[in-house]
Amino acid sequence: MADLALGFWTDGPTKSAIVDFVGRVTAEGGPDYVAPDDRVAVFDNDGTLWCEKPAYIQLDFLVRRFAEQAKVDPSLADKQPYKAALSGDLAWIGDAVTMHYQGDDSRLKELVGSIGAAHANMSVEDHAARVNAFFAEATHPTLGRPYLQCTYAPMVELLKYLEANRFTNYIASGGGRDFMRPITGPSYGVPPERVIGSSVGMSYSESDGGGHVLIGDTIDVFDDGPEKPIRIWNRIGRRPILAAGNSNGDVPMLCYTGAHGGPALRLLVLHDDAEREFDYTAGAEQSLEYAKKYDWTVVSMKSDWTTVFV
Amino acid sequence: MADLALGFWTDGPTKSAIVDFVGRVTAEGGPDYVAPDDRVAVFDNDGTLWCEKPAYIQLDFLVRRFAEQAKVDPSLADKQPYKAALSGDLAWIGDAVTMHYQGDDSRLKELVGSIGAAHANMSVEDHAARVNAFFAEATHPTLGRPYLQCTYAPMVELLKYLEANRFTNYIASGGGRDFMRPITGPSYGVPPERVIGSSVGMSYSESDGGGHVLIGDTIDVFDDGPEKPIRIWNRIGRRPILAAGNSNGDVPMLCYTGAHGGPALRLLVLHDDAEREFDYTAGAEQSLEYAKKYDWTVVSMKSDWTTVFV
Repeated sequence: MADLALGFWTDGPTKSAIVDFVGRVTAEGGPDYVAPDDRVAVFDNDGTLWCEKPAYIQLDFLVRRFAEQAKVDPSLADKQPYKAALSGDLAWIGDAVTMHYQGDDSRLKELVGSIGAAHANMSVEDHAARVNAFFAEATHPTLGRPYLQCTYAPMVELLKYLEANRFTNYIASGGGRDFMRPITGPSYGVPPERVIGSSVGMSYSESDGGGHVLIGDTIDVFDDGPEKPIRIWNRIGRRPILAAGNSNGDVPMLCYTGAHGGPALRLLVLHDDAEREFDYTAGAEQSLEYAKKYDWTVVSMKSDWTTVFV
Repeated sequence: MADLALGFWTDGPTKSAIVDFVGRVTAEGGPDYVAPDDRVAVFDNDGTLWCEKPAYIQLDFLVRRFAEQAKVDPSLADKQPYKAALSGDLAWIGDAVTMHYQGDDSRLKELVGSIGAAHANMSVEDHAARVNAFFAEATHPTLGRPYLQCTYAPMVELLKYLEANRFTNYIASGGGRDFMRPITGPSYGVPPERVIGSSVGMSYSESDGGGHVLIGDTIDVFDDGPEKPIRIWNRIGRRPILAAGNSNGDVPMLCYTGAHGGPALRLLVLHDDAEREFDYTAGAEQSLEYAKKYDWTVVSMKSDWTTVFV
């Protein structure tokens, strides 16, 4: 067991649960030993590895794109979500996802076509360049720091701790796979082939012996809820032994983790720190119930983390 | 550059093309240097890494399942493909895919529903156990060797040679992803998370805080032709620099390989060895034209391999 310090974690039962679990699965000859190839860990992203309030970071990226599209095509300006985008109203769009987690898909349905069409017919490489340009300049609206500095220091430390103990970390997020890929390497040490997320349909275009993959105009997979374990199997072909999430959409992934009564650690990040981050449980009601019922490890931002951001 | 011998390859232009390419992309400071993380290689499976004649190996697995299903439900016995399965007629089913590569999907359409339904509602773990049981007992109908010994020794050697030179190898096959996964580790050194292939839809089932991924009854992705580069992006998020295939269905993957004029090696396996394997070009007509036009490296089984099977 590699003995990296978890210095951003307060000594106490949560930190002990992590260290104890990693100790058990890495103890060769022990009853809970797991071979390195099977030490698969999956992490939700929004609200688990980085900040998701007051709106998902990806929504800022999309809203800028909607505004750009509405400026090119003024007939869009009176329609949602372009109207909200032009007036800088992130909340109208952000609420769509919160409402979804509370069982109301009405606004999400209004948005789906526009999200699908946002980058239609762009090559995946051009899209990645736009993502990088966004992160080079965009800052969080209330925390006043670049988005790339809105990752949670204790969680990034946990990723590195697991890696040092020969775990393989994956992102399994409802966020856009190709929105996350350009930055998960530098931010989390997770390369593009280990990013699982929502995706739009794609097409292939060939010319003169070469080819490009182009972004389509419809959502292919919304990687949330029961779709998370399905996509985890699709991409990894192994059942994780560790999962971390923070909302109702992570419940199936957390349940799926740990095969046949074998060792498993299920972490649920609780946003209870109005001073350093945010304090909310909306959209996490079911996951908190499950945590209580099935003895998952709840991570209190307020009590379990010495530092939130660095 | 790691200097593993490619002992199963005859000295000559094909072997030199491989060794030269690997030398160039691993030469630090050289004009064609590629960082290890970007040394992505993709391999078709049927006819590229293992034998695909007289019928795809997976069809033998499916035919046994069809026969099993028809014995349980005799009403199936007069319908195709169950009728062919009960009489051991592998060719009727195998021809469906050959016809597909020649532009005729009529028989494949007859088959699709049955393939989808073959393992419906089985957990992915139970399906994997069936795959392992099949490979433990099944042998090739004409070569008289276990299927797992029908892999091409020079290609397995190439996989290990690339791995020693810090390439990351993926399978990108039209064959079933979850049919290949249990055996690509022992056979090719390729773990399940690096197997891309066709797949059926899946569902998620939860009980008492645990969950299972179950096989569905419809084909989700037929990973062939233009779908191959799309799925490669989906799974890897990088453009390969080396690809190997053997049929028309591999043309888009081979074209996609090599970004923006950078270094690329495209290998096309030619089945011209009736004595040691098989001699055919049906289903490879377009790929052979492309190889000629765009200077891909054609691998002649007869001339370029000292040994086919070990």
